[in-house]
Amino acid sequence: MDAELLTIGNEILIGQITNTNAVWMAQQLNLIGVSVIHMSSVADEREAILKAFDDASERADLVLVTGGLGPTKDDITKKTFCEYLETDLITNEDVLSDVTSFFTKRNKELTDINKKQSEVPNGCLVLRNKNGTAPGMWMEKNNTIFVSMPGVPYEMQGIMTDSVLPEIKKRFKLPFIYHKTVLTQGIGESVLSEMISDWEDALVEKEISLAYLPSPGMVRLRLSSKGFNETELKNKIESETEKVKPLIEKYIYGYEEYGKDQPKIEEIIGQLLLEKGLKLGLAESCTGGYISHLITSVAGSSDYYNGCIVPYHNEFKNNLLKVDSSVFEKHGAVSKECVIAMVKETILTFKADVAIAVSGIAGPGGGTVEKPVGTTWIAVAYGDRIIQKQFVFGDNRQRNIHMTAMTALNMLRKLILKIED
Amino acid sequence: MDAELLTIGNEILIGQITNTNAVWMAQQLNLIGVSVIHMSSVADEREAILKAFDDASERADLVLVTGGLGPTKDDITKKTFCEYLETDLITNEDVLSDVTSFFTKRNKELTDINKKQSEVPNGCLVLRNKNGTAPGMWMEKNNTIFVSMPGVPYEMQGIMTDSVLPEIKKRFKLPFIYHKTVLTQGIGESVLSEMISDWEDALVEKEISLAYLPSPGMVRLRLSSKGFNETELKNKIESETEKVKPLIEKYIYGYEEYGKDQPKIEEIIGQLLLEKGLKLGLAESCTGGYISHLITSVAGSSDYYNGCIVPYHNEFKNNLLKVDSSVFEKHGAVSKECVIAMVKETILTFKADVAIAVSGIAGPGGGTVEKPVGTTWIAVAYGDRIIQKQFVFGDNRQRNIHMTAMTALNMLRKLILKIED
Repeated sequence: MDAELLTIGNEILIGQITNTNAVWMAQQLNLIGVSVIHMSSVADEREAILKAFDDASERADLVLVTGGLGPTKDDITKKTFCEYLETDLITNEDVLSDVTSFFTKRNKELTDINKKQSEVPNGCLVLRNKNGTAPGMWMEKNNTIFVSMPGVPYEMQGIMTDSVLPEIKKRFKLPFIYHKTVLTQGIGESVLSEMISDWEDALVEKEISLAYLPSPGMVRLRLSSKGFNETELKNKIESETEKVKPLIEKYIYGYEEYGKDQPKIEEIIGQLLLEKGLKLGLAESCTGGYISHLITSVAGSSDYYNGCIVPYHNEFKNNLLKVDSSVFEKHGAVSKECVIAMVKETILTFKADVAIAVSGIAGPGGGTVEKPVGTTWIAVAYGDRIIQKQFVFGDNRQRNIHMTAMTALNMLRKLILKIED
Repeated sequence: MDAELLTIGNEILIGQITNTNAVWMAQQLNLIGVSVIHMSSVADEREAILKAFDDASERADLVLVTGGLGPTKDDITKKTFCEYLETDLITNEDVLSDVTSFFTKRNKELTDINKKQSEVPNGCLVLRNKNGTAPGMWMEKNNTIFVSMPGVPYEMQGIMTDSVLPEIKKRFKLPFIYHKTVLTQGIGESVLSEMISDWEDALVEKEISLAYLPSPGMVRLRLSSKGFNETELKNKIESETEKVKPLIEKYIYGYEEYGKDQPKIEEIIGQLLLEKGLKLGLAESCTGGYISHLITSVAGSSDYYNGCIVPYHNEFKNNLLKVDSSVFEKHGAVSKECVIAMVKETILTFKADVAIAVSGIAGPGGGTVEKPVGTTWIAVAYGDRIIQKQFVFGDNRQRNIHMTAMTALNMLRKLILKIED
């Protein structure tokens, strides 16, 4: 079953708001086996809306329409639906009673404009809205179902959960869609793709689709498959996830499980530290506190995190982390010797079991021929065991900061789990 | 001039990522006088893409396409463009040289798959991508311009800013849209709106539109007007900006000038520190390094920033910032006494002229009846002068961290500029 999402409203087109409704609806539909094949946003204009209805009904079995249901003059969705369905607006007594009690409860006066909210296209199935005044409406034309809902996210979500999703499941026999996502760090999309190309090629005949989802420093590999036997699908995807694991094991820092949120690397590290009872300390030069910010953005991080020093000049690397001034003279602040000294002292300062120290040239200034912008040294320590590595990331300051953080967190994870690099 | 935004990629349709590109592009186009009349998202499928190209060319003069340009097998945008334009892929030597140097700089091997990134439809205008390997491409068919760009936000934004927007301005006579944005911190949208309501009401007949653009801790007020006489528009908007200033002066931390990026508060603070020759030090408990991250995300911040200590437990507030243990016993770590002690020692530790110290309960745990989640103390110091204040922000951890940072930075700004609170 193919669905299309249609948003009506100028606020999306002028970039005033982000279309978060579309993400939520797509996730909910995918979870019950409905494929979203198209999304559109159009203005509050009669011709544009009618054209969008026509186009959508050619593509999809189900069209979910949000927006344009407010009581003001610029909202014309209901009127345009009547024109499209060749019918008229009639007052629905259930909705009128809902709207009246909505205003009574809030001690607000019910105006004629508010009463108009209870008018719906004749013949539609009304979907009650417990969070607002504009009802949802379920309509059909030429074998396509149209559902119209308000654009306010929690009103739309209420109507979807209470009425639309149950109604779809009741009326249609839907396939099951199973997903699992492999989260990798430290390998680019193209090298990754070459490493797993034989495995990837064999997915086609198993009817599993694979998507590469890159972000700086990370690539997510999403496997998905659709069918009617839930157990079979699950086993098939889990088995392929197991097969790809040995090919790229050292890059995999976690998995996104079906129906759950994607875990962030700082959450995975946090969980690991908590399980092992380890305390973390940080020393950040080029990342300027970003790793500390990521770690502390996780609720409960004070259970495993002790603190951070950001020594943004050599003088403070010396004063606060006892990096000997000879290190700066002989090797510079962006050096193996410097990050090793930093990470050792961080363990002591924060009475930590594990620590990360980074020093690099984030840019755009500060690069030299030997050490261009992007050059970064990272050291991670677990007690006495220290691993340090040099990277050359790139030209972009924000990206260098982010890449350094992602790489450092994954190095720490591998050190704790004794995964060879 | 009418534009359409087309996103290609399954990740949007299954709800895995939010389409933030569309918001950013719509804003940028609106600012130069181009109207966005339609947005669509389609799957990485030949037929769906070809149909979307056809439909878009009927509606719009300009179609901006993002996504589907990765080097892997699931990305078919380029191939489908060739089919649509009835042309072939050819290697572009400039792009090949960009791609090669992209990999060389990073000490990574250039694979055959990477080389394919330099293939573009014959006859297209290539738009260089300084942040990645997939170039932008400017093509035309039946009087409609198609621009294809990668979906990675900072790559797309780079190509838009460097090439697409200037090219549109060069080729078309667009109405002039002048705008100026007043940046405020520390006042909510509704209170702000009441304070300026008479001024706001008078804008209508001057044909100036006003938008409230809220984000946690901040509200931006954007004034804009459209026409063909640039000087007249500019004078009109500047004059209204001057009129609103005395009404809300203490909340205004800056302005976004026409044609320039919105200055972030950390950039405004950075500029101020640089001009006055002041050095900054930080001590962050509840914000966990976020203020330090913001400060150091500005290029050149090492000229005025010395460093930060994140003491995530009382023990380290005591060891590193000499907060007396009696302070914790008598007043707790989230107290006036604690942040004053922290800010004083931060001035000394980092040999700083100005400093910020924060301590609060970010949540979700740690709240009490007297000090609920969101309770935060902030102290700012300029030499011997210290100002401290308590806030109770709210329940959401990420929002509390962000609100604390925004508020602290603005308190420091006001202290330096001697603006009364």
